[in-house]
Amino acid sequence: MSAAGDPPAAGSLGLVETQQAVLFDEGRPLTLDSGASLAPVEVAFETYGELNADRTNAVFVCHALTGDAHAAGHHGNPARPGWWDTLIGPGKPVDTDRFFVICPNLLGGCRGTTGPGSPDPDRDGAPYGLRFPLFTVADLVRVHRALARRLGIDRFLAAIGGSLGGMQVLQWALDHPEDLHAGVVICASARLSAQNIAFSAVAREAIRRDPDFHGGDYAAHGARPENGLRLARMLAHITYLSEESMRQKFGRRIQDADEPRFAFDVDFQVESYLAHQGDVFLDRFDANSYLYLTRVMDYFDPFADPVQTQARLAALRSRFLVVSFDTDWRFATEHSLEIVRTLAEADVPVTFREVASPHGHDSFLLSVPEYHRTVATFLDRMEAEAVHGAPAALAPGERAER
Amino acid sequence: MSAAGDPPAAGSLGLVETQQAVLFDEGRPLTLDSGASLAPVEVAFETYGELNADRTNAVFVCHALTGDAHAAGHHGNPARPGWWDTLIGPGKPVDTDRFFVICPNLLGGCRGTTGPGSPDPDRDGAPYGLRFPLFTVADLVRVHRALARRLGIDRFLAAIGGSLGGMQVLQWALDHPEDLHAGVVICASARLSAQNIAFSAVAREAIRRDPDFHGGDYAAHGARPENGLRLARMLAHITYLSEESMRQKFGRRIQDADEPRFAFDVDFQVESYLAHQGDVFLDRFDANSYLYLTRVMDYFDPFADPVQTQARLAALRSRFLVVSFDTDWRFATEHSLEIVRTLAEADVPVTFREVASPHGHDSFLLSVPEYHRTVATFLDRMEAEAVHGAPAALAPGERAER
Repeated sequence: MSAAGDPPAAGSLGLVETQQAVLFDEGRPLTLDSGASLAPVEVAFETYGELNADRTNAVFVCHALTGDAHAAGHHGNPARPGWWDTLIGPGKPVDTDRFFVICPNLLGGCRGTTGPGSPDPDRDGAPYGLRFPLFTVADLVRVHRALARRLGIDRFLAAIGGSLGGMQVLQWALDHPEDLHAGVVICASARLSAQNIAFSAVAREAIRRDPDFHGGDYAAHGARPENGLRLARMLAHITYLSEESMRQKFGRRIQDADEPRFAFDVDFQVESYLAHQGDVFLDRFDANSYLYLTRVMDYFDPFADPVQTQARLAALRSRFLVVSFDTDWRFATEHSLEIVRTLAEADVPVTFREVASPHGHDSFLLSVPEYHRTVATFLDRMEAEAVHGAPAALAPGERAER
Repeated sequence: MSAAGDPPAAGSLGLVETQQAVLFDEGRPLTLDSGASLAPVEVAFETYGELNADRTNAVFVCHALTGDAHAAGHHGNPARPGWWDTLIGPGKPVDTDRFFVICPNLLGGCRGTTGPGSPDPDRDGAPYGLRFPLFTVADLVRVHRALARRLGIDRFLAAIGGSLGGMQVLQWALDHPEDLHAGVVICASARLSAQNIAFSAVAREAIRRDPDFHGGDYAAHGARPENGLRLARMLAHITYLSEESMRQKFGRRIQDADEPRFAFDVDFQVESYLAHQGDVFLDRFDANSYLYLTRVMDYFDPFADPVQTQARLAALRSRFLVVSFDTDWRFATEHSLEIVRTLAEADVPVTFREVASPHGHDSFLLSVPEYHRTVATFLDRMEAEAVHGAPAALAPGERAER
């Protein structure tokens, strides 16, 4: 929410605050796909813009693996805005002058929402650690819906997310067909490849085999598996950049020197970049959350059962925009195309764009003009339909609604 | 060398033995590019086939990052042949019925050749650890040449190697133009990309931050940085397979079960594969060697100085075969093409083949028919020229010799 006083910079929400909601209780706990239950569930969230009288202008933002509730605006330092401030704000593609935007930290996270670092009521408030139940993308959506209800919203103009965020959007539309007028699924996947799983497996091994991990109970030992978490982040960052963007950003340039030092310490700039990414990650992320949230992605496979899938696709009521980036090799265009083909074969209205961007998977966080135009145009169209009641227009190449 | 007695299996060298040579001495030490010197240098090596009377049929095999002297035949168990047994043997592309083949473990290695695990004479025989001097690909070649001289060979029909092995071949031809009639450079690079360096940087971080690393002096502590070395190997294996071969080999199949277990332990087959690769690597490789040999690759950049390069290319006397594999993303075809372009622009005779193979970087170790035919044809032609004195024939697309 924009605070009073300070006029926001052009296009910026200005100062915003994270809020907390306490959802579920022992009488009505959150029941997970695994059968386990949780109560209460605290959720950190931010909102931007104003809900209209008809409650038809709400947009739900689902964050990716290491995101949080602070999607846009800033918390006091305009130079350090929220993670999706490029996309969300007054006059931006997710236009807070027109839309009411909600972004929570997801279940299992470590930025204000209940997760493995939260106090376990069965253990006198000691952190759950690996006793936290394993959950699914459908469980993430259950918490999103509970938050939405708390805020008085049953139906969204759109849910939007990149990477793991896009998976939540897809799952939501499949599980609750009436909830979303539209889903925007950006550089996501409906089914991780063996290589995708392999990268996460190595990252998890780095964390779990760190002697400071203590089987997930590192807090009780006054320790943190920092080496493991740092390695996990460094490795992930290799997959977030394209090979070409790494070449352009760093090439073979040497850090802080003209000549190579011929040593094992950081020498090339790319080493310095990765080391920095690893270090700053320690300040804001929890190792157990990293384990849980990467595992959620590995197991995500909403179209696994062909018979069930047919029925679920037939029940879908949302329209989709699916976006990929041509240099993304974390979730390459083929992952998006698999989603598009599955939806289109069931006559679900879906617009697909592969956007040219040199920045790889990271593109979804950056100001890539064609990407922003694509999202803006789609949301404008959705607004015309859902808010102003215009007849559903078809984008070129899109199929007619059933 | 084939042992007497047992007739070898068809196409196999049968039982072979690793030999040891002690090269250099305090009076004539090995002087490295860094200025440091080493003496003595022990070298483990194997030889196959017989040197002819004119000493014109010798082929030198340079191994890759984690190879060793045991390239072909077996050490007692025919089911566990040397690492390049697919390529080397009677009637194979590197035909031991016609060629005398030498393969040493390289300097800095841990399989019988002097490296960071060897006794440091200045420390009463305690291992060098990180006191071992940093060396270059040119230093690797210096040791190769000393071994060759010890075996009475000044000039080779060909040197051949894949990955880091190919780098040694290229460096050798540049540094000592009279030594090699031909060089066979397979899925190598003349200049690692930022992404290549990044993967190795994460692997080295895993080793160096392992609490059992002890600054490289793990032996003195009765320890080994096993977690770090295991992670390094797991990560490397992701880059050795193509995404497609991972998909074909593992897909999303579950290990030892029909249904996912929804746990953090190994569940998907690809996790089991990586864990196994990591575990078996511990039995045969040393963490410090891994640090040194990956760093050698990072710094390799033989064409860095354009003026020097011109002169060195003009002095080249070898002919080249350069091979890449279309699904190799560790050193993609573009890396080979950079070598080919550099050589061809200087009118160095070079034959280039990009071979279709689903197996990624690992292809160079496997029986890929087009690849084996290409190497066999090239070596046949080199033999005709260098052993039998036939006029140099040109391959299609190859330039005339100067």
